[in-house]
Amino acid sequence: MTAEFRLNDLPIGVFDSGVGGLTVLKELKAALPEERFIYLADTARLPYGTKTPATITAYALQAVNFLLSQGIKFLVIACNTATALALPTLKEHFPKLPMMGVIEPGAHAALRVSKNKNIAVLATLATVSSKAYEEALLRNEAQAKILAKPATLLVSIAEEGFLNQELTRLAIVHYLEDILNDQKFNADTLILGCTHFPVLRKMIEQVVAGRMHIVDSAEVLAIEAHELLQQQALLQNNPREALRQNTRFLVTDGVGRFMQVAEIFLQQPINSEDITLVDIS
Amino acid sequence: MTAEFRLNDLPIGVFDSGVGGLTVLKELKAALPEERFIYLADTARLPYGTKTPATITAYALQAVNFLLSQGIKFLVIACNTATALALPTLKEHFPKLPMMGVIEPGAHAALRVSKNKNIAVLATLATVSSKAYEEALLRNEAQAKILAKPATLLVSIAEEGFLNQELTRLAIVHYLEDILNDQKFNADTLILGCTHFPVLRKMIEQVVAGRMHIVDSAEVLAIEAHELLQQQALLQNNPREALRQNTRFLVTDGVGRFMQVAEIFLQQPINSEDITLVDIS
Repeated sequence: MTAEFRLNDLPIGVFDSGVGGLTVLKELKAALPEERFIYLADTARLPYGTKTPATITAYALQAVNFLLSQGIKFLVIACNTATALALPTLKEHFPKLPMMGVIEPGAHAALRVSKNKNIAVLATLATVSSKAYEEALLRNEAQAKILAKPATLLVSIAEEGFLNQELTRLAIVHYLEDILNDQKFNADTLILGCTHFPVLRKMIEQVVAGRMHIVDSAEVLAIEAHELLQQQALLQNNPREALRQNTRFLVTDGVGRFMQVAEIFLQQPINSEDITLVDIS
Repeated sequence: MTAEFRLNDLPIGVFDSGVGGLTVLKELKAALPEERFIYLADTARLPYGTKTPATITAYALQAVNFLLSQGIKFLVIACNTATALALPTLKEHFPKLPMMGVIEPGAHAALRVSKNKNIAVLATLATVSSKAYEEALLRNEAQAKILAKPATLLVSIAEEGFLNQELTRLAIVHYLEDILNDQKFNADTLILGCTHFPVLRKMIEQVVAGRMHIVDSAEVLAIEAHELLQQQALLQNNPREALRQNTRFLVTDGVGRFMQVAEIFLQQPINSEDITLVDIS
């Protein structure tokens, strides 16, 4: 007697250019404790945030093809830049694969807490240039006004683990002072539009000093992912399989550095046996 | 009558992962005003500094193959990371192409100014891990002692053009304080072991406050490149061709961002007609 193939038993694929998406994985694991995950980090070609749409889309297609070859039932693009630039193309190329990016959930979360619908976004250069947050916010709320700003250096500062340094505060002040001083725009909500930024949240809160709500897409994304899996009857519902819940990490370069930086983002160590170096290009 | 092919008329190829090598190009142009240059920046895959030896070597081989297809008479690896990891392999693969990296000239320059031969190096993680400076310094001076430190964030700070900010000073202090406080090691010379760092030189000098000589490989490299071209009779010696001296820029992604950041490094604007987007992979 052979075991029956059940789509529900397959893991959830989570894709990011590097470690930032681990802030999303952390929330997914909390919301979906019975699921297995494969996290793919394209560390050989990171960062995506300063690259162009054509390049980012080509890299994302390779990544998703690779995840499909491993067997996944659902895909999360845990990277704002890849979501902003590649999600429409990915949906076209893989019409049968349920998938979710981080931008739409981020927009939902921001609109839920904002009173005046004047919303600021800190993101990478590529995400800001794409206007993806602007489009997502306006799709959901025609009266929304958006002020988006690239905050390139915060990506490296987060990866270096400079969480409490004065230079981190100064970099955050540098990127936020125009937004905080713009009394005409008067933003009441700030979206952390890059999955690296939640690790700097405490210092961002200190600079914002209660003047804006701070929104991180990851929590809302995890809730929406649970809903989508439930709707499509894809939740893990075999108690024996649920016990096997685990997470595999696939990286395209630098296993050592990934492990080291991952601890900052996942807030727990990764077992070296769970990481595999892969070639997706 | 067809024009005779003259090797001397070919341009010099300069390769870097991004914009840092422009600090080297600037010195090369000053030392070799009659030469033409092709500068290739692998911006689609930068930065190299946090990647592994195998990946960096593979990327460098593709880059040099591409430069050879354009026709070059001499190659400068204007990137410490690519020099540290890929130069030996490149020399093996292309035995007839004269080439030079930035590390050996940097070591020569440091040993010339250091009195006690205790030399500190700030570089990328990949360059530090390779121990390439250690080997180059010891090859030239058996008594040399080396203290090398990765300074990852300074790469992004230089690219953001934060040349005079307090946060830049704090980042430099962060990376240098162990070196400056190490009275046992007592470094009298600091090598800027990444071609991004010369744009932060003023602020580095302020932090060092005369306690160490600061060495940038680019000047010495340009002198050594002139000597090598003269020895191999490869200098441009046709007065009519010399007038055609120009520089072409080839980038693998992001023409707009390259132009913008290049001005910080080259200290002069680049004409958009001189930049071409290329696929080298």
